[in-house]
Amino acid sequence: MVEELGRRTWIIAEGYIPGESYDANPTRAMASHETACILNATDQPAAIEITLYFSDREPVGPYRLTVGARRTHHLRFNDLDDPAPVPRDTDFSSVIRSSVPIVVQHTRLDSRQPPHALLTTIAWPA
Amino acid sequence: MVEELGRRTWIIAEGYIPGESYDANPTRAMASHETACILNATDQPAAIEITLYFSDREPVGPYRLTVGARRTHHLRFNDLDDPAPVPRDTDFSSVIRSSVPIVVQHTRLDSRQPPHALLTTIAWPA
Amino acid sequence: MVEELGRRTWIIAEGYIPGESYDANPTRAMASHETACILNATDQPAAIEITLYFSDREPVGPYRLTVGARRTHHLRFNDLDDPAPVPRDTDFSSVIRSSVPIVVQHTRLDSRQPPHALLTTIAWPA
Amino acid sequence: MVEELGRRTWIIAEGYIPGESYDANPTRAMASHETACILNATDQPAAIEITLYFSDREPVGPYRLTVGARRTHHLRFNDLDDPAPVPRDTDFSSVIRSSVPIVVQHTRLDSRQPPHALLTTIAWPA
Repeated sequence: MVEELGRRTWIIAEGYIPGESYDANPTRAMASHETACILNATDQPAAIEITLYFSDREPVGPYRLTVGARRTHHLRFNDLDDPAPVPRDTDFSSVIRSSVPIVVQHTRLDSRQPPHALLTTIAWPA
Repeated sequence: MVEELGRRTWIIAEGYIPGESYDANPTRAMASHETACILNATDQPAAIEITLYFSDREPVGPYRLTVGARRTHHLRFNDLDDPAPVPRDTDFSSVIRSSVPIVVQHTRLDSRQPPHALLTTIAWPA
Repeated sequence: MVEELGRRTWIIAEGYIPGESYDANPTRAMASHETACILNATDQPAAIEITLYFSDREPVGPYRLTVGARRTHHLRFNDLDDPAPVPRDTDFSSVIRSSVPIVVQHTRLDSRQPPHALLTTIAWPA
Repeated sequence: MVEELGRRTWIIAEGYIPGESYDANPTRAMASHETACILNATDQPAAIEITLYFSDREPVGPYRLTVGARRTHHLRFNDLDDPAPVPRDTDFSSVIRSSVPIVVQHTRLDSRQPPHALLTTIAWPA
């Protein structure tokens, strides 16, 4: 089965990591987080580069990662730190490029107050 | 009225069934659940196959179901068990293929804490 | 300015009106509701027909309404009653057809528990 | 790197600024707000015009703003005041036009009750 499902470039115009969680030492599941869910349904590894755009400074990136063949990766922007951590409580957007077709969906869990709030949307393919 | 509304392949890059509900014996309406809302507006039954993708293992599937002509089915991933139940508290993605055009929308009700949180998005058509 | 922004047919695969609100006599703003936000940015009235699809019976409709030229209408499915009210606590999908191009977005406010939960997505254009 | 990612016209059919926040003097982060997240990934400033559509009156606008080259702007409809403030507790839709390609995503934070609720979706490109 050789399949190519998706596109090579995706944009998430929204982006915001809440700086706090109601629990000062939250579990990973309940910590406020911003996620790009990336599906690589192809039979080749996806070499991915992410560039972050801000309101008041030049873009930062690329952040690099690999998503294996026939694998999903729910990437937390919270975890990115090379070339720089993603600032909290700060508006941003992201452009995600891949060497093979992928599908990207944006999700946030906001636990600044209990209980948490959720949002999601399909990203925009270029 | 013979109509074909939709596409034959859809992808939901996000996927996560919360392993708990605040009520240990929740009603079906209030149990944490992950849903693919599938509309078959055609005049033929839709033979549907779903493949699940994970972060650390090979894809699982196909899960098979039928959605009747001129019917909607709000499929809960919680209910899938053949060839295997869907693991809880685990990131996944899904690819949904149909013999006739359908429309797919993704919804989650997360009741780990009261009150529940909701998210939804149109899926991505291949 | 003569503009035509949008499409003539839209599908919302998700549909569910929660049968309760935490307040037994809620304000209109806070009553649980399911909405199709319809923008008619053209210079002609939009004659709209909505057909509802269910899991276990034939489709119901058309429901008919008009959205004026250069107007938005945030239609509550709760308010539909001709040819029949929309059943509560029941899964459905909707197909929305218009005589002129429109844009449709789906929103739910779920106030079964306080505080309320929200979801939204762009509908799917045929 | 000269890139053009996106489209020049976007529609958000949903629109509603909750008139209240649970905290009478909320922080900017926690005040109820309606947002259009706009990414301009091009190398030219984006001259943007927004027109608002209502249910019972003629459209209002254009509201004008600029989003710099390689910048994101998470525009709060709450902040618009020329040619007129956006009425609270009122249904509206918006059409967003840009001189260069942009990507637009719609987000609401509703803090009428604590804790807040969230929704988001990609806007509709014309």
